[in-house]
Amino acid sequence: MSPLISLSAREIAKRVANRELTAQAVASAYIEQIQSLDADIQAWQFFDPDLALKNAKALDQKGVDGLLSSIPVGIKDLMDTADMPTSYGSPIYAGHRPQTDAACVATCRAHGALIMGKTVSTEFATFKPGMTRNPRAPKHQEHSPGGSSSGSAAAVAANMVPLAFGTQTAGSIIRPAAYCGVVGYKPTHGTLALAGIKALSPSLDTVGVLARSVDDAAFFIGALIHQTMTPIKTGQLRIGVCRTPHWGLATADSQRALAQAMKALEKSGAQLHDLTLPPSCEDLTAIQIQIMAYEASAAFAPERKSHAELFSPAFSALMTAGQAISGIDFAKAQSQAGKARADVDALFASCDAILAPSAGAEAPAGLDATGDPIFNRLWTLLGLPCVHVPVGLGGCGMPVGVTLIGPRWADLQALSAAHTLELALR
Amino acid sequence: MSPLISLSAREIAKRVANRELTAQAVASAYIEQIQSLDADIQAWQFFDPDLALKNAKALDQKGVDGLLSSIPVGIKDLMDTADMPTSYGSPIYAGHRPQTDAACVATCRAHGALIMGKTVSTEFATFKPGMTRNPRAPKHQEHSPGGSSSGSAAAVAANMVPLAFGTQTAGSIIRPAAYCGVVGYKPTHGTLALAGIKALSPSLDTVGVLARSVDDAAFFIGALIHQTMTPIKTGQLRIGVCRTPHWGLATADSQRALAQAMKALEKSGAQLHDLTLPPSCEDLTAIQIQIMAYEASAAFAPERKSHAELFSPAFSALMTAGQAISGIDFAKAQSQAGKARADVDALFASCDAILAPSAGAEAPAGLDATGDPIFNRLWTLLGLPCVHVPVGLGGCGMPVGVTLIGPRWADLQALSAAHTLELALR
Repeated sequence: MSPLISLSAREIAKRVANRELTAQAVASAYIEQIQSLDADIQAWQFFDPDLALKNAKALDQKGVDGLLSSIPVGIKDLMDTADMPTSYGSPIYAGHRPQTDAACVATCRAHGALIMGKTVSTEFATFKPGMTRNPRAPKHQEHSPGGSSSGSAAAVAANMVPLAFGTQTAGSIIRPAAYCGVVGYKPTHGTLALAGIKALSPSLDTVGVLARSVDDAAFFIGALIHQTMTPIKTGQLRIGVCRTPHWGLATADSQRALAQAMKALEKSGAQLHDLTLPPSCEDLTAIQIQIMAYEASAAFAPERKSHAELFSPAFSALMTAGQAISGIDFAKAQSQAGKARADVDALFASCDAILAPSAGAEAPAGLDATGDPIFNRLWTLLGLPCVHVPVGLGGCGMPVGVTLIGPRWADLQALSAAHTLELALR
Repeated sequence: MSPLISLSAREIAKRVANRELTAQAVASAYIEQIQSLDADIQAWQFFDPDLALKNAKALDQKGVDGLLSSIPVGIKDLMDTADMPTSYGSPIYAGHRPQTDAACVATCRAHGALIMGKTVSTEFATFKPGMTRNPRAPKHQEHSPGGSSSGSAAAVAANMVPLAFGTQTAGSIIRPAAYCGVVGYKPTHGTLALAGIKALSPSLDTVGVLARSVDDAAFFIGALIHQTMTPIKTGQLRIGVCRTPHWGLATADSQRALAQAMKALEKSGAQLHDLTLPPSCEDLTAIQIQIMAYEASAAFAPERKSHAELFSPAFSALMTAGQAISGIDFAKAQSQAGKARADVDALFASCDAILAPSAGAEAPAGLDATGDPIFNRLWTLLGLPCVHVPVGLGGCGMPVGVTLIGPRWADLQALSAAHTLELALR
């Protein structure tokens, strides 16, 4: 493994800006890494080393400009790319070649990032897994990388890119981050543009990133939104520990991860208290499921009409569930979500961040399913910024971790709490 | 003019279901109307009478199925159509032919509606007018139909379709409805899927409809969202009259329209009271402008990179304004909007609907500009359902009217208030 691989994304951009490093050198190191590992892991839906090198050469010729100069980035295959095929994880779009980049991809390019290829997504960012294996699985064993940002999480975990885009509608950034032992950052809903990303449920769909550190995640998203984001270590955090109504579904591994994170935060000087969600939050998981089904069946009206035979059974079931929901019930669900958001916003008067489980268990064995987003759905519905921090290993030797949740539109608060935990765990 | 033209949309569907009418008869009547009027009005960006007739024939052969059976619908050219070109009002996309219908178009088709063609949109639903003339303008005079749903409003006003889709980000449904003297209905933000519609500012972008009556508007949107919506006449409405902070910009024509609507509502038994917006709403118009600029410049990152030379000066200025806004200022604007939404939601405890001006004046003379959405921006930002009801004519003989605004996710309340006013004005 080239020593370049261990550089942070922030450091790559800095060294390239200082002419200590070329885009081609960075690209070559990562291409080598992908070529040596991906036959086994299969994180990439599309990867063309010649195209990646050509783009790197063009960056070197153009000279440095841009905050993300020469940083290799993986693009979830739910996002349009004009120079690479885009399948949205579905055979309906096999070989599809969009005319225009997704907005977030174009912004990456404008900042000088090096687009490395397309990472595997589950079918339309829902249930049906792709072929990706979890790189943290012991030899000769198969574990799911989670979903739907399966390829992005696996690619980052295997050091095939320092950063990769994810999207989350239920738990599609935080869960794969947890299963693959990397950082996952889902910003406040509405932070990054969704233009050119296949819509699933726009009330919930959120663009974010998989990264190797909290700082890299913050640096990357900050560059894309005209905001310098540098997480700081905070000594006197007030942390509300929220086990969620689903705590009974957490295995001993996940429960231990939470306890370990609490201990580390306390050691760092944080004050912890138990936090119970207000009554308006009682059914948030059920409401998230309802809103997602209704909006997904509306968004996929064209495919339902012309290509339903190419849906997986699970996706067909989602469409059927959505069509069975009336406009009135959808409106009720949205109203309830609105009430819950206001109530949870008020909780942040007494805490800087919320600590919660990221997943109920380690990554499931086998590649048939991507695991359950039960611990993520409610935070996605609330629209709050979430950061997954890896904590340790569970009984099967697979990663486990926790989520730090911040106030709406105060992402840096969540990132700083996550960074504080990350340092305390070292 | 064929007598079929005077049938309501609801009535067309009913007669077709009862086999009293064929899709072809309906199509022929409307095609004749378009062919006799559109050379002058130019509401259509794309219209192919053979395709429309072919689609009508197919509907007749298939037999009736669907709530919108055989209702001719105009599609704003911001929405993707697989069988018609889609330009988004920009030369960048001249001749563009999307692979897939927009979700709302596919849903229309699934309910048996007859897609008549594409109506003119301003450039990317912003400022630069298309070629459409306001059909209510006196002979030998030119007035703007408003924008951005210019073609849809003009087509409905000239009886070239009973219904046409609009979208609103600032005032793009209500304003053209006001200028053309038709009903405009912008549902609660998030009601209809935006998939396949060119994104401008997703926090604000809302799909709605231009129609000839409140009942048709409610019937159409209801069919698309699995909800039977029948506005009722309500005797004892509590109406909060909100002149907005921009009242000083309203001409005598617009002020008279509000007074006339108040009188009509009072006569119908409604109780009116003056309503002042809470302090959190002070800067809503400025905040809407800021959020729209920021999100638009993010959404159009690909076009900024590759086709900026084809932007109009006004669109370029919007892009520049958006890029100058930092992520922190965007977050502040969104937070303020959230507070204002909660405060205005609470106002509906003491009123069933809010009555407000729809526009500052009659449609401007000439075709160089589409008028000012100053009276619409704040309601769009609040995300509330809005219905424009035509009230009468101003000094130049052009239409004026008012907006009825309902509580979030209680669109039927806004529609019923609008229907009550509509009946009271007859």
